[in-house]
Amino acid sequence: MTDITNSTTQTLDDTSMKSFEHVIINANLATFSEQYGFAIHKDNQDSTPYGQLENAAIGIKNGKIAWIGQQEQIAAYLADYQSAQVTDAHGNWLTPGLIDCHTHLVYAGNRSNEFEARLHGASYQDIAEQGGGIVSTVKSTREADEKELFAQSEKRLLALMKEGVTSIEIKSGYGLDLETERKMLQVARKLGDKYDIHVSTTYLAAHALPPEYKERPDDYIEQVCAWLPTLHDEGLIDAVDGFCENIAFSSEQIKRVFEVARDLDLPVKLHSEQLSNIGASALVADYQGLSSDHLEHLSEDDIKKMAASGTVAVLLPGAFYTLRDTKLPPIEALRKHQVNIAISTDCNPGTSPLTSLLLAMNMGCTLFYLTPEEVLAGATNHAAKALGLDKKGKIEVGADADLALWDIARPADLAYQMGLNPIKGTMYQGQWR
Amino acid sequence: MTDITNSTTQTLDDTSMKSFEHVIINANLATFSEQYGFAIHKDNQDSTPYGQLENAAIGIKNGKIAWIGQQEQIAAYLADYQSAQVTDAHGNWLTPGLIDCHTHLVYAGNRSNEFEARLHGASYQDIAEQGGGIVSTVKSTREADEKELFAQSEKRLLALMKEGVTSIEIKSGYGLDLETERKMLQVARKLGDKYDIHVSTTYLAAHALPPEYKERPDDYIEQVCAWLPTLHDEGLIDAVDGFCENIAFSSEQIKRVFEVARDLDLPVKLHSEQLSNIGASALVADYQGLSSDHLEHLSEDDIKKMAASGTVAVLLPGAFYTLRDTKLPPIEALRKHQVNIAISTDCNPGTSPLTSLLLAMNMGCTLFYLTPEEVLAGATNHAAKALGLDKKGKIEVGADADLALWDIARPADLAYQMGLNPIKGTMYQGQWR
Repeated sequence: MTDITNSTTQTLDDTSMKSFEHVIINANLATFSEQYGFAIHKDNQDSTPYGQLENAAIGIKNGKIAWIGQQEQIAAYLADYQSAQVTDAHGNWLTPGLIDCHTHLVYAGNRSNEFEARLHGASYQDIAEQGGGIVSTVKSTREADEKELFAQSEKRLLALMKEGVTSIEIKSGYGLDLETERKMLQVARKLGDKYDIHVSTTYLAAHALPPEYKERPDDYIEQVCAWLPTLHDEGLIDAVDGFCENIAFSSEQIKRVFEVARDLDLPVKLHSEQLSNIGASALVADYQGLSSDHLEHLSEDDIKKMAASGTVAVLLPGAFYTLRDTKLPPIEALRKHQVNIAISTDCNPGTSPLTSLLLAMNMGCTLFYLTPEEVLAGATNHAAKALGLDKKGKIEVGADADLALWDIARPADLAYQMGLNPIKGTMYQGQWR
Repeated sequence: MTDITNSTTQTLDDTSMKSFEHVIINANLATFSEQYGFAIHKDNQDSTPYGQLENAAIGIKNGKIAWIGQQEQIAAYLADYQSAQVTDAHGNWLTPGLIDCHTHLVYAGNRSNEFEARLHGASYQDIAEQGGGIVSTVKSTREADEKELFAQSEKRLLALMKEGVTSIEIKSGYGLDLETERKMLQVARKLGDKYDIHVSTTYLAAHALPPEYKERPDDYIEQVCAWLPTLHDEGLIDAVDGFCENIAFSSEQIKRVFEVARDLDLPVKLHSEQLSNIGASALVADYQGLSSDHLEHLSEDDIKKMAASGTVAVLLPGAFYTLRDTKLPPIEALRKHQVNIAISTDCNPGTSPLTSLLLAMNMGCTLFYLTPEEVLAGATNHAAKALGLDKKGKIEVGADADLALWDIARPADLAYQMGLNPIKGTMYQGQWR
């Protein structure tokens, strides 16, 4: 156990106290910061679960965490403190704002009709023959104007935000033409402009082969490579993704896209090993990718490469659940090689119509046997790493003041409860929203 | 397809129109009423899915549905209608208010610590040896005063109510002594008094053997039988339940409790065939029970008995999910024998810490392969039957005006989406709450 009182809480004086724009007192912190003993890998015997710090207080300045200490250190200053911006947490738990690091949140239409048809006995092939599957979402998304696409996507964003989500990744990939990929990314940016949430955008034109390129995947990949610099010039792209599977694109095809990304200094990630292993995670590790996602069919060799490249393993239990998958991702091997694990909703209309990151965390425990600390780290510190956000996902001095306050007895409650949203308040960049 | 326009919508005149306290216009109705063609069993070729009626309007009087018709029938009256109580549904879907027919919602403490310990490798036996399991909830519930028990339970009730739940069953069973069983039932009644929701109470003292009766189950059952008339005299009991399993009580022991219930004219139900088959559903059918619940190990003979006695099969996918069960309840046989199936949260701190009936419905589809229509019927019409409430769970003239209005494209959305609460409004006894 780290001796937090002596080593990592800061001294306080009257001047610095008066400079705080917000102060949160009487909080229990799950910091997920290495500075407070957070170290999830099992061989670290000195770690403090959740990097927790009880009976603590936080000072906030310019949207950043400026001071962290024990409640008793700040108590003497409070009487003279002029700001109205003191929040008494009354012993509730404060975590970093949650981060949903893999979503397809922007799309039009939904696929509940296919969900229903399958339960009445229709096969995937029946549905595909009737124009269903991803093609139907591509069609709806192409047809929707930007306003309609925004309105439909906004509902999903608000559902996630209600559960303390302060950062989200949003992918394109239901356009599969320049105009619609642009429209999706613009909507993602505008969601971030309208709401108090950080949006990281990901270019996923290599998601599926559009009908107009049938049996010409290499020609389509050429287009994907051509559109990328254009949309990047327009400020629409923070990272580049692809779907590397037998039913989608080969690792050679994805590599062509990654080469363009490297030239543009854009980080990469990949939908990998969900259904088979055709070298996706090995490829993403070669490019020092941010994350490799899904991973049910990941090998130990891949894991070693991911560990060496610092690539985060993003697990998506909502898709595993919806598809009634039975092949578990290799959790023990990921732990053994100390690969950081993130958890995300994979919010999408086909395989994971899920807009609750808390529920994804519960599924991570129940379906993948992850611990509550692992899934919470997976929606904070490790999710931030999956997005390359080094000031988010942890409570420490200098980090962004993105915080979630919860009415819970202990951090594990967030993974244990299903359907009960215990949020008390969410702070984004130093402001309660 | 029933010709609803001619057969089941009512004529309207100026006098009756003016008598309505509320009118809802421009609604699509999922009535779950046999009068509108709802007939879930497969051999009924004339059924209308969901008993649906599009472009409809409803008149409400004295907390009841007084008139149902087509939008065009009511349009002419609206200009002169003086009441401010017109709700334009704008084409959204209206369902009966949802009914959660099997919950242990009133309890104190939680068991996230055990959830976490198990994921760190502790066995159920380790946890039991440390005072965990149901015993820990009994201890917390005995120790909590009524105010604290109310406050903790209220949060769970509010979470369910936010999703359009207008009726709920709440069981005792964490007291296991007269005083605490009474306290639990009183809290359940007071929740119903405070909030706009119908609460059905169930006496479940035969839930587990309390520590003070160790190895004396018959002596405990004698007490359970003795407390029942007392608490019934106090107006605290609407039905009687038990846990009939090898790890709990035998069918002979439960029968003694049922005999007392019969003398008091109280309906019975049972936790049956979750882990094994020791004759529970056969017993509940013998007593013309309202419902038999869990049912993973139910036999076809039992199903025939349930069909004959009109006993509802209450399925609890949240417990199946949390326990990582693999033995499915016999859905096809239940369909074949036309047993009504209900779906419920089983909200409890051990095996189903679930306060979302919508999520239970999704689990019913995903884990049990039920159709969206089946799970929605299971949370409306059939759940009402499981509670013996013949004026609830359906939209028809004379039924209680307990309604939920949803921002969805089609009824299946309610089972398809996870974590997105599309509620637009909930009406209880003719009043929007």
